[in-house]
Amino acid sequence: MPSVSPSLAAALADTAERVEACIERLLPRTDLAEAKLFHAMRHACLNGGKRLRPFLVLHGADLFGVNQDCAIRAAAAVELVHCYSLVHDDLPAMDDADLRRGKPTVHKAFDEATAILAGDGLLTMAFEVLANPETHEDPQVRINLVAALARAAGTHGMVGGQMLDLIAETTQFDIGTITRLQRMKTGDMIAFSCEAGAILGRAAPPLRHALRAYAHDLGLAFQIVDDLLDAEGSEAETGKPVQRDAAAGKATFVSILGAERARAQAEMLVQQAERHLDIFDGRADMLCQVARYVIERRS
Amino acid sequence: MPSVSPSLAAALADTAERVEACIERLLPRTDLAEAKLFHAMRHACLNGGKRLRPFLVLHGADLFGVNQDCAIRAAAAVELVHCYSLVHDDLPAMDDADLRRGKPTVHKAFDEATAILAGDGLLTMAFEVLANPETHEDPQVRINLVAALARAAGTHGMVGGQMLDLIAETTQFDIGTITRLQRMKTGDMIAFSCEAGAILGRAAPPLRHALRAYAHDLGLAFQIVDDLLDAEGSEAETGKPVQRDAAAGKATFVSILGAERARAQAEMLVQQAERHLDIFDGRADMLCQVARYVIERRS
Repeated sequence: MPSVSPSLAAALADTAERVEACIERLLPRTDLAEAKLFHAMRHACLNGGKRLRPFLVLHGADLFGVNQDCAIRAAAAVELVHCYSLVHDDLPAMDDADLRRGKPTVHKAFDEATAILAGDGLLTMAFEVLANPETHEDPQVRINLVAALARAAGTHGMVGGQMLDLIAETTQFDIGTITRLQRMKTGDMIAFSCEAGAILGRAAPPLRHALRAYAHDLGLAFQIVDDLLDAEGSEAETGKPVQRDAAAGKATFVSILGAERARAQAEMLVQQAERHLDIFDGRADMLCQVARYVIERRS
Repeated sequence: MPSVSPSLAAALADTAERVEACIERLLPRTDLAEAKLFHAMRHACLNGGKRLRPFLVLHGADLFGVNQDCAIRAAAAVELVHCYSLVHDDLPAMDDADLRRGKPTVHKAFDEATAILAGDGLLTMAFEVLANPETHEDPQVRINLVAALARAAGTHGMVGGQMLDLIAETTQFDIGTITRLQRMKTGDMIAFSCEAGAILGRAAPPLRHALRAYAHDLGLAFQIVDDLLDAEGSEAETGKPVQRDAAAGKATFVSILGAERARAQAEMLVQQAERHLDIFDGRADMLCQVARYVIERRS
C-alpha cells in the first residue's frame, strides 16, 4: 500500500462518504417502469470509487470558504461525468472491459443499450445539477460552472481525448500528441475539478490560475501513473485488466520514455504541482498531500 | 406530398438553412488528429433533416421579439441534442438502424466507437452553446435554458423515454404508459423547443404556459404520426426502415387504438394545439401551420 497519511486517508474517506450520499439523493431508488435505467446509473456511480475529482472540488472550494452544501453538488456533478465516461469507455465497441473496480461493468451487469442510456443520463444530469439554484444562488456562477464543465468534458476536452485514444491504437503518435491526448482525456476534467472550487468561490484570477496550473501538472502525473500501473500493476491490485496498452501496441508515456524516465517525470510534475500551491501559504496542504498520493497509488 | 403552404415551405427552408449555417460554424472542418470525431458529428447534423425543433425555437422566439442571433443558437443546441439522440438510438445495441434520412447512420459511415463519442460530443456541445454569452447576455436566461434542456433531455425526459421504449419490446404497456413513454421520448424535447423562445424572451407565465400546452399536444400528435408512418409508410418515402414496431411486437398508439382511431386522435390533438395559440391573437400563424404539417407529413 502507498503511504497515505492518516489525515489524507480520513479526508478521502470523508469525501467519498459525502459524495456518495449526495449521489444517493440525486439518484434515489425508484419503482417506475424505467427503473432499470436508474439502477444502471446507481451501479455506475455507487461503487466505491476513489472520488479523487470530488476531493479536488471540495478542497479547492475550501480555500475560498465556499458553502459545503454547494461544493458537494459541484463535486457530485464532476463524479457523474467521470462515471458516465467510464460506462461508455467500457462498452464493447470501446475498451470492451468486463470489470471495473473489481465488479461487472454496466453493460455486463445490465446490457449494452442500458449502458449507453445510463451514460447519457449521467452526463445530462451533471448539467441539471449545476444549473439548479441549490448549487449556487448566483446564476452567473452556475453558468460559469456549466460552461467550464462542457468545455472540459466535450470535444476539445475529454471526448476529444477519447477519440485520440482510439486513434492511438492504429497510429503511432509522438510524445507531443500523447501529451495533448492525455491532457484532453484526463487532464481537462481534473483541471475543471480544481477550478470548480475557484468558480464557486469567485476567486481572484491569480488564485484560480494557480489552481489550474496545479491541476495541469497533477493531471499529467496522474496519467503517467495510470500508464505505469497498466504496464507494471496486477489485476488483483488495480481491480481492472492490465497490460492492455502494450497488447494494443499503443504508444504511452511508458512505451516512449521507458518506466524509469516516466516515473521520474511524474515525480517532477508532482513537485511542480506542489509549488503552484505556495500562493495559498500552507492552507492547501490537503491538495499537496493528494498530489503525492496520486503518484504513490497502486490502483 | 402533404399540402404545405408556400409560406410554411419557405419558412421551413429558411430555418433549415440558418440552423445548418449555425451548426457549420459550431463544427468547422478541422485537420486535428481527432478530425474523425468532428467528421462524424457533422455527418450526424448536416444531413438535411426537417429541423422541426429549430423551427419551433425560432418561431416561438419571434413571438417575443427575441434577437435572431440568440434564437438561432438555442435552435442549434436543440438540434445538436436531437441529432445526438438519433446517433445513439441507431446503434446496433439500440435500434440497429443502417439508414437515417436515406444515408448511412453514423456507426455505419464511421464505426460504433466513433458514433458513441460523436453523440456524447454533440450532447455536451449543446450545453456549451447555451452557456455561451452569445446565446443571451443575461446569465439567468442562459441558466434557465440549461436547466430546462437538461430536464427535457435527461432521465425524466428523453433518455428515460428511450429506456421505456426498449422495455416496451418485451413488456406490454397500457395506453397510459405508452402516452407517458412518448411524452418523455419525444414530447419533452418538443416542449423545450417551444419554451426556449419564451425563456429567451422572458415571456409572462401565461404565454409560456400556452406555448407549453401547444407543444404538449403537438408532441403527442407528432408521435402518433410517427407510429402511423412506421405501420403504413414505405422506406422510400420515410428514408428509414419501416414496420419495425410490429416486427418487434411493440405496443404503439397504432397497435392499441388501430390506425383509424390513432389518426383521429392526432387530428384532435392538432386542433387542440392550435386553440392554445389563440392567446397570441393570430401572431402564431406559423406555429399553427406547422402543427397541421406535422400530421400531414409522409416522412
